[in-house]
Amino acid sequence: MSRQLHFNLFLHDTGHHEASWRLPGSDPYANLSLAAHQHLARVAEDAKFDSVFLADSPVLFNDPGRRPSGKLEPTLLLASLAVTTSRIGLIATASTSYNEPFNLARRFASLDHLSGGRAGWNIVTTAGDAAARNFGLDGQPLHRTRYQRADEFLEVATKLWDSWTDDAILADKQHGVHALRDRVRGIGHRGEFFRVDGPLNVPRSPQAYPLLVQAGSSEDGKEFAAKWAEAVFTAQPTLAESQAFYADLKRRVARAGRDPDHVVVLPGIVPVIGDTEAEARELDAELDRLIGPEYALRQLAHTLGVDPGILELDRPLPRDLPDEEEIEGAKSRRTLIVDWARRDNLTVRQLIGRLGGGRGHRTFTGTPVQVADTIQEYFENGAADGFNIMPAVLPAGIEAFATKVVPILQERGLFRTEYQGATLREHYGLPRPANRLVLAGEGVR
Amino acid sequence: MSRQLHFNLFLHDTGHHEASWRLPGSDPYANLSLAAHQHLARVAEDAKFDSVFLADSPVLFNDPGRRPSGKLEPTLLLASLAVTTSRIGLIATASTSYNEPFNLARRFASLDHLSGGRAGWNIVTTAGDAAARNFGLDGQPLHRTRYQRADEFLEVATKLWDSWTDDAILADKQHGVHALRDRVRGIGHRGEFFRVDGPLNVPRSPQAYPLLVQAGSSEDGKEFAAKWAEAVFTAQPTLAESQAFYADLKRRVARAGRDPDHVVVLPGIVPVIGDTEAEARELDAELDRLIGPEYALRQLAHTLGVDPGILELDRPLPRDLPDEEEIEGAKSRRTLIVDWARRDNLTVRQLIGRLGGGRGHRTFTGTPVQVADTIQEYFENGAADGFNIMPAVLPAGIEAFATKVVPILQERGLFRTEYQGATLREHYGLPRPANRLVLAGEGVR
Repeated sequence: MSRQLHFNLFLHDTGHHEASWRLPGSDPYANLSLAAHQHLARVAEDAKFDSVFLADSPVLFNDPGRRPSGKLEPTLLLASLAVTTSRIGLIATASTSYNEPFNLARRFASLDHLSGGRAGWNIVTTAGDAAARNFGLDGQPLHRTRYQRADEFLEVATKLWDSWTDDAILADKQHGVHALRDRVRGIGHRGEFFRVDGPLNVPRSPQAYPLLVQAGSSEDGKEFAAKWAEAVFTAQPTLAESQAFYADLKRRVARAGRDPDHVVVLPGIVPVIGDTEAEARELDAELDRLIGPEYALRQLAHTLGVDPGILELDRPLPRDLPDEEEIEGAKSRRTLIVDWARRDNLTVRQLIGRLGGGRGHRTFTGTPVQVADTIQEYFENGAADGFNIMPAVLPAGIEAFATKVVPILQERGLFRTEYQGATLREHYGLPRPANRLVLAGEGVR
Repeated sequence: MSRQLHFNLFLHDTGHHEASWRLPGSDPYANLSLAAHQHLARVAEDAKFDSVFLADSPVLFNDPGRRPSGKLEPTLLLASLAVTTSRIGLIATASTSYNEPFNLARRFASLDHLSGGRAGWNIVTTAGDAAARNFGLDGQPLHRTRYQRADEFLEVATKLWDSWTDDAILADKQHGVHALRDRVRGIGHRGEFFRVDGPLNVPRSPQAYPLLVQAGSSEDGKEFAAKWAEAVFTAQPTLAESQAFYADLKRRVARAGRDPDHVVVLPGIVPVIGDTEAEARELDAELDRLIGPEYALRQLAHTLGVDPGILELDRPLPRDLPDEEEIEGAKSRRTLIVDWARRDNLTVRQLIGRLGGGRGHRTFTGTPVQVADTIQEYFENGAADGFNIMPAVLPAGIEAFATKVVPILQERGLFRTEYQGATLREHYGLPRPANRLVLAGEGVR
């Protein structure tokens, strides 16, 4: 079979557009609704998507006055969705800065067992002082320190997932031997950030490790991805930038001694689909009208690390902005936004309009064929292995994509019409990790 | 309606008896099986049980050679069970020593939303050095310190659950106001163990707080229960001891300024049910034959804080054992076992036989009517508000209890034939907590 596209649905209650909850058909309580999430996952599974995904941060992130802002904890929500789906992958975001590796490794191993091998972990280091202040700190650790901790966190987690061999359980009722003791081992980890004895209290799971996903595009983030990630979410506003990111990341993966085909690159896209171009553009414009500018201005100022007072709606961004190096938050998001505004010479108001929908991700507005064409163009020109689908409005946006765009791509032989594998790794064509504990025991490594 | 019994099913893969996994009909992979847990929860729900419950510790607790020892993480497993049940309560154990209050408060609030108000939290401080060594410590914190941390943990968690008022969400699409900003507040907690800004990133849940459950029966444990618990699991081997515990706990609750009726006391019982007494005793004996003594000996020695070498199978316990005060682990378990062995003048082998089945809990072996009679006797004589049902063999033990014992109690008017309420608190007849944030704002408290 020829190379195949991969699709992830980025779940986001009523949609990725800031104002989507205000549309007449939207359920403003969707963020807390199991039924709403079950519906989205089912639509994506019916369309044979590889996975669904939940973003997260352990802090009340959005202004609760402005849009639905509470979020159910992702690993629990996905454990619920595991029951009402059977094939689609389930990717939860969790922070390496504000969790203990034993607890988190265990939750992902549990999700992998509960779902029959469909768990994925979007690894984040969590930007922002507000999150830090929910965990006894005065402010966030340095960007570099967060990534150092993340690296050791992954070392501990993978050791824990290797602490049972795949054949550890005998279940010999006759002799009363459940597991072979020498195939369940402590990890004795002693590092800079963590000391963990192990073994994990969950046997090795169907996928061995959850699919490891990463989304930060700073220098540290890309190096971390090159070492650990198997799928990468990224925000790239143009084809050329996607191509550059794609080539750069695959090079880094090779340099880290890994097979570049074992990392799938998934740019985020916001499909706005109409039966005609005019219809699609009208939907786009309606959403922008619903956003008030004050809130968006404050959010933009926060990302840029400046005072909201210095931004004027009908003028371009000020010349004088803090460099990426000075920002300890989401570095790559900031750089993307500034580059974009300067290149297209946008006023602050225009910039806010674009960010409301896509937050730096590429918006594909058009007919189903136009959207399919653009996807194919990216896929066949070294810009993407698939896409992270971020509909502006949910569930309408994913229903339109699933029923109108997916069939075109299936007809073109670019996307599966049936699931071929059982696990999330199999959907993405990624190998199941070998057990390093066994390799070590045999002296292979 | 007259006072009603309450029943909780203590989920434990193939059963609470050490050797249950070795029975011909047992699934030795039940500990990792969603389907096995779904079945147990469904049987309990069909019998109108108040709740199901999962014990837990963040460590590989049992010898993996001996019996199924890996465990799925309870909050995730219960999030899955929330989908295939609709009325029964879902109680997960989680440790205050090895979690952050923000993360755990959020997971329980999420479980409460996902289940429509059926979440419960069995609060434990986690005994044992092995668990501590999975979290960067050399050994467990002192018993007293663990309870001090637990107390502050609950203070933080309840503040977080109060950080949104019940009426905070307006969802006014017209004016673009989702929540009222002054009804979502930071908690600014500054304590000895924790500094947490809040607010929680989950709105107030159907029950406001999960049902708060506690099971330690040490001095510290009982004082903690008196202050915080709404349901108490306890191991009491005789009617007289149950009565003494019950009266003592209710007194402590009153002394803490709370209504004694707002705490339900649920002793653990191991029902071993046969259609005849002889059949029940034969099942009991078969299980004991399956336990090898070496493992049980080591486990007993660990609980008592002694070297296994000093225990002899066919002699009584040695006179010289460490006092409860010297033990930093599960204090009350140790005292219970020693008292029991001395009172009944048991050899170590006999003691092990009893512990294999009930681990200090009362075993009710007999016909359905005999078991129902004993339950009624406890219930009507100040020994219990209900029971934590711990079948030696699962699912057979709960199927027998549900179909043979429950109907007798229903006929006697002692147990519901239909659920009356929607939430776990309503099943147990407990009030929904008022929001202290609102009370504070109004100057009431």
